[in-house]
Amino acid sequence: MKVNLNHQLNDPRSKGVEILSIGTELLLGNIVNTNAQWISEELSSLGLNHFRQSTIGDNAKRISQIVKEISLRSNLLIITGGLGPTQDDLTTESIANSFNASLVEREYLWDQIKEKLSLSGSEINNSSLKKQCFFPEDAQIIDNPRGTAPGMIWEPIEGFTILTFPGVPSEMKEMWKETAVNYLKNNFSDGYIFFSSTLKFSGIGETAISEKIENLLKLKNPTVAPYANLGEVKLRITARAKNELEAKKIIKPVKEELKKGFSKFIFSENYDDLSSILIKELIKRKESLAFAESCTGGLLSSSITAIAGSSQVFKGSIISYSNEIKQSLLNIPENLIKRYGAVSEEVAQNMAINAKEKLNSDWAIAISGIAGPSGGSKNKPIGLVHISIVGPNNQITNIKKIFGKTRNRIEIQRLSVNVCLNSLRLILLSKSK
Amino acid sequence: MKVNLNHQLNDPRSKGVEILSIGTELLLGNIVNTNAQWISEELSSLGLNHFRQSTIGDNAKRISQIVKEISLRSNLLIITGGLGPTQDDLTTESIANSFNASLVEREYLWDQIKEKLSLSGSEINNSSLKKQCFFPEDAQIIDNPRGTAPGMIWEPIEGFTILTFPGVPSEMKEMWKETAVNYLKNNFSDGYIFFSSTLKFSGIGETAISEKIENLLKLKNPTVAPYANLGEVKLRITARAKNELEAKKIIKPVKEELKKGFSKFIFSENYDDLSSILIKELIKRKESLAFAESCTGGLLSSSITAIAGSSQVFKGSIISYSNEIKQSLLNIPENLIKRYGAVSEEVAQNMAINAKEKLNSDWAIAISGIAGPSGGSKNKPIGLVHISIVGPNNQITNIKKIFGKTRNRIEIQRLSVNVCLNSLRLILLSKSK
Repeated sequence: MKVNLNHQLNDPRSKGVEILSIGTELLLGNIVNTNAQWISEELSSLGLNHFRQSTIGDNAKRISQIVKEISLRSNLLIITGGLGPTQDDLTTESIANSFNASLVEREYLWDQIKEKLSLSGSEINNSSLKKQCFFPEDAQIIDNPRGTAPGMIWEPIEGFTILTFPGVPSEMKEMWKETAVNYLKNNFSDGYIFFSSTLKFSGIGETAISEKIENLLKLKNPTVAPYANLGEVKLRITARAKNELEAKKIIKPVKEELKKGFSKFIFSENYDDLSSILIKELIKRKESLAFAESCTGGLLSSSITAIAGSSQVFKGSIISYSNEIKQSLLNIPENLIKRYGAVSEEVAQNMAINAKEKLNSDWAIAISGIAGPSGGSKNKPIGLVHISIVGPNNQITNIKKIFGKTRNRIEIQRLSVNVCLNSLRLILLSKSK
Repeated sequence: MKVNLNHQLNDPRSKGVEILSIGTELLLGNIVNTNAQWISEELSSLGLNHFRQSTIGDNAKRISQIVKEISLRSNLLIITGGLGPTQDDLTTESIANSFNASLVEREYLWDQIKEKLSLSGSEINNSSLKKQCFFPEDAQIIDNPRGTAPGMIWEPIEGFTILTFPGVPSEMKEMWKETAVNYLKNNFSDGYIFFSSTLKFSGIGETAISEKIENLLKLKNPTVAPYANLGEVKLRITARAKNELEAKKIIKPVKEELKKGFSKFIFSENYDDLSSILIKELIKRKESLAFAESCTGGLLSSSITAIAGSSQVFKGSIISYSNEIKQSLLNIPENLIKRYGAVSEEVAQNMAINAKEKLNSDWAIAISGIAGPSGGSKNKPIGLVHISIVGPNNQITNIKKIFGKTRNRIEIQRLSVNVCLNSLRLILLSKSK
């Protein structure tokens, strides 16, 4: 059976692929459904764009109902959850009920399960685990190398195939890679692949970008889709093609156009974030980095040290959260703080100059601001941030930002970190070695 | 309209509540659907157990179709996503189409949006943002205090109500708390309320807790549900009762039993996290705090400075990421590092003692470890962390931890921060003033 499931995302009449997650813990909000996200990404990369996801509890009637419903509109259904040994695990029998099929025991599976259990030193409980050996007669088994509950590939009616996996992410992923990927490639691919390229933007908002590329957002192949995060926007360009080379050719002109129109706003052509980009650039230049943080209180430092390899360029920081520490560790004169206030261009600049010296780095960034929720005044409102960047030849860049009233403390801190990182990126760009 | 939606989780014939997440980025697997999880938890605590979740792409026909479908089987639909200004944001108009309703502009909303934009310093663009001012005539607006896209409460046909929210989690959550909670309480409660009390645990895992309270996990009223996070477990005790007083009475004996059995592991009886608990306790004691961080690289400091009011107790930190800074700013003797290594009890202890002195604080915590992915050795594997805590009378507590091989860099950093905070909490507890 070869069914063309591609490019159906925009055609509601055609049949397609769906994901069904089963588990009352999902409905209660006890866990986040990361399985659906992982499978979505896998399906995308196989060119099998699914158009709908559902989540349902551990309830036999509801499971039967929804599977039947999906069989009327789709060709392929990926199910996770409810394959375990407890009374709540009802998936296989409920699916079988949807199509009036009965379950038959596979004796070799029971031998496998017993072997797995003895290897792991667990006690064997027949009554509950034996359940995992029952499948519809014509179902193909998906081995579970990581656990005891196998899954199945079953075509209960012509043109509708179900794949089942346990809800445990590590088991599901292993079974997917070992069995499902090849099965799907052989039975559901039409020979086309989907290939994506991502551009990441900083210093410009989603709306501003979208307005300028209305024409690109309307394209069919490649498609261009914007995603916004706090302080960062990414555009994903996705092509459908016979192979990666051809896909890249389709993507290229669109990418070029974007890079031309937004050159300095684009900081990454893959999944790198601002921190990794900066670290890579500084490693290349053999230059080191240090911070003096006040209002961000360590967030700037931790955004750098979250990245593996940061120790090659990052020396350290002084978190001068109190004025006392600004004076004692960063040598900011008391009268400078009195005269201009701790949140001022003058103090931020002195913090940067002294941090560079004290931490013996090529680059230093200092930041002082008012993150709120209290501490603001008319002249210095909550959201006011002064940033100062000092470089190898003691060139100084001072930046003043006022984040809007809708921003809370955490957002002001995160956006400030973003401005610090992006500003240094732009400075490095303009002073490329 | 008062509809009884409670306790319907197990009855497939009765009508209920559903969640619909809209966004092609969810189908492509670009983002994890944390909104559905958050709303699920909120609905549970309101006693509105929903029985089904769906996810659909930014496709007008599909949105209309699924909303109509849901209206036939449910009373209440919570929708997130697709309220923004771009061409992909089709939610409001597609819902209206499902019920042949037209959209009418609310002029006052446009004034509000313009005001919000001018406050945040953005440029105003009529064509795209104006879309966010159009709603069905009889829809009630849900204000968005954090962004420009309002939501709505709309009952397009009798007995079926839709609530819409933007997909941006911070905006959705704020709108939920400010408007939706009260609306749902007033219109969808059956006279019974659900009241929850949460106990937060640190230093013990979910499995260890669950094994000891099997009997409590089986209770019907109150129910006890565990939620696990990195380094933290919470138990939510939920009672269904006529009023809060009665609910508290139902919860009390269970809470007492838990507090007795897990006394020192329980750090909070509400939503406070470890950082807030520590800050409150230090404010009460009029004692100050400072850090010397190596492997956590600022994460410990930022976990404290994320909390409003932290400036009352937190003086600052030295992020001594390189050995050079450990020597120059923390006065760690070079031969000590050579002899024991930077990741050792000896160095961590010296860092703590010197940080306390340099930063002139009552308490100092120092941390040095190997966060990976490289830098480990047989004797000092990735995941090894040394923590040292020095207090007012120079009493010293040294802690050694080895986090398992399955932990990545970020998890090792986050778990280390957790150990630092929880260890100081326990020390303060044992030396209560």
